[in-house]
Amino acid sequence: MDEFGLISRYFAPLEIERDDIVLGIGDDAAVLDIAAPARIVVAVDTLVEGVHFPAGMAAEAVGYRTAAVNLSDIAAMGAVPRYATLALSLPAADEAWLSGFAHGLGDALRAAEVSLVGGDTTRGALTISLQLIGIVDGAPLTRGGARPGDLILVSGTLGDARAGLDVPAQGAGTAGAAWLRERYERPQPRLALGQALRPLAHAAIDVSDGLLADLGHVMRMSACRAEVELDALPLSPALRAHCALREAQGHALAGGDDYELALCVPPAAAAAAHACAVRAGVALTAIGRISAGAGVVCRDRDGHEVRPATAGYRHFS
Amino acid sequence: MDEFGLISRYFAPLEIERDDIVLGIGDDAAVLDIAAPARIVVAVDTLVEGVHFPAGMAAEAVGYRTAAVNLSDIAAMGAVPRYATLALSLPAADEAWLSGFAHGLGDALRAAEVSLVGGDTTRGALTISLQLIGIVDGAPLTRGGARPGDLILVSGTLGDARAGLDVPAQGAGTAGAAWLRERYERPQPRLALGQALRPLAHAAIDVSDGLLADLGHVMRMSACRAEVELDALPLSPALRAHCALREAQGHALAGGDDYELALCVPPAAAAAAHACAVRAGVALTAIGRISAGAGVVCRDRDGHEVRPATAGYRHFS
Repeated sequence: MDEFGLISRYFAPLEIERDDIVLGIGDDAAVLDIAAPARIVVAVDTLVEGVHFPAGMAAEAVGYRTAAVNLSDIAAMGAVPRYATLALSLPAADEAWLSGFAHGLGDALRAAEVSLVGGDTTRGALTISLQLIGIVDGAPLTRGGARPGDLILVSGTLGDARAGLDVPAQGAGTAGAAWLRERYERPQPRLALGQALRPLAHAAIDVSDGLLADLGHVMRMSACRAEVELDALPLSPALRAHCALREAQGHALAGGDDYELALCVPPAAAAAAHACAVRAGVALTAIGRISAGAGVVCRDRDGHEVRPATAGYRHFS
Repeated sequence: MDEFGLISRYFAPLEIERDDIVLGIGDDAAVLDIAAPARIVVAVDTLVEGVHFPAGMAAEAVGYRTAAVNLSDIAAMGAVPRYATLALSLPAADEAWLSGFAHGLGDALRAAEVSLVGGDTTRGALTISLQLIGIVDGAPLTRGGARPGDLILVSGTLGDARAGLDVPAQGAGTAGAAWLRERYERPQPRLALGQALRPLAHAAIDVSDGLLADLGHVMRMSACRAEVELDALPLSPALRAHCALREAQGHALAGGDDYELALCVPPAAAAAAHACAVRAGVALTAIGRISAGAGVVCRDRDGHEVRPATAGYRHFS
């Protein structure tokens, strides 16, 4: 099966028939009619085997995760994802792998009503780049708008994905361990929450590199300081059962891969934000405040600063 | 230098300051205001070292080529390219390589007035995916509209890039050989020609896999047959000096990598098409006709069918 065969078997079914897709997979480019007001958001994520996911991870999980991590970027903008293109390099046309990958990718894209509209499939080391195009009706949520006095809110629970990475994919043991693994393999992009909080929040980011690192990005762009309370970090019962509190907190601060949203919200909008979270079916927890200054600091209940052993993932560092 | 440092040093300068770029490099996604009528085209191309370009090819040529081959897809739609995102995996943060790559990429993007607006830079095997977003005002040029009676026109000359691939990057020898190498390393996307011919042509494709293979894609999508005259293929003087006629014609039919446009144009529009080509400063040559049927056939002056040894590149075949 050559590239054209595998595109038509595995990827063409991920295209959605919809009036705005004038031309999808199979020409030199896709052609898309964007509804007014014609403001688009564009995000790209690359996943490399052995860097972004362990070698040998189930293909379906790789496909699902590819879409989910990218959808999470769109969620962090408060935008509505619409279209995806896939640049896939793989060493050989392994049909079992492709079938699983396309299945997982399709699951995550369909759940978000995103149509695959094009891409490029080539031979090479296993490298997956997905680009998403979304629509935003008005001002997007950015990293640059946080102000002193804002509350720092995070969705869901933190640290689960990092713990899940250590759980064997098969034979996870307890139900809690299996759930942690699921949190790593199938992160849930917080699209509805991001869209609902777009008019309320001053700034947002999705937690991919680790909470401290990601808040650091927001603080740099917003020119202020994040003060995080260690005891306020939302930890799941499964994570608490899986490891000691100190390790769980370390995972929550620096583990990354949770794809929850971290938002800076003015106190006056906090009640409305919590109501949005209830409607979206996602927990939302205040974990600290924005102050004047720079950087990110995390303190325990005695006011001592806590520094986790790792500060978040950076390529090439 | 970590990923953030190299993005700000090498890639942030490729962003153009322009009112439609609401938010560029450095947030979770780029935000772009699309002018009415809000019809966008999207194309992705991946280049893998050792597959799409020889290992050790000069970084500047790799960067230029990355943009040019993708711009060529936009040209084949008759669209105007506007934005690019880059997904770059590389084994190490080699600054000399990055500097050359960004320089070449920037050259090609700036020439087309395209702004880099985002991307993802990761560690991995050298794999480059560029995605372009363009605008088209009306019906795009597709592969699907060719009709019996149409003339087949190609821009520029064919086969040069295939011959150039065999010319050493350093010490090309003759001026002609250096020009052939340049044709491989720095293909010229035919943007102005594609845009001008959009209202005139029934179908178009850019010649990347090889003329016969690419015309084959058009014939499949258009459900008709291409009849190509071997003696009509436009061959450059440099190619003619470089190899025997038979080899030159083989390169023109199956070599690929020329990134010229192949268009199907009704005879009544041929004069207008040639006038467009003169204005765009590009040669345009009639090489055959579309008839009822299927597939692509090439005949010599005696009417004998010619089959080149290779039929065009396909991954995994």
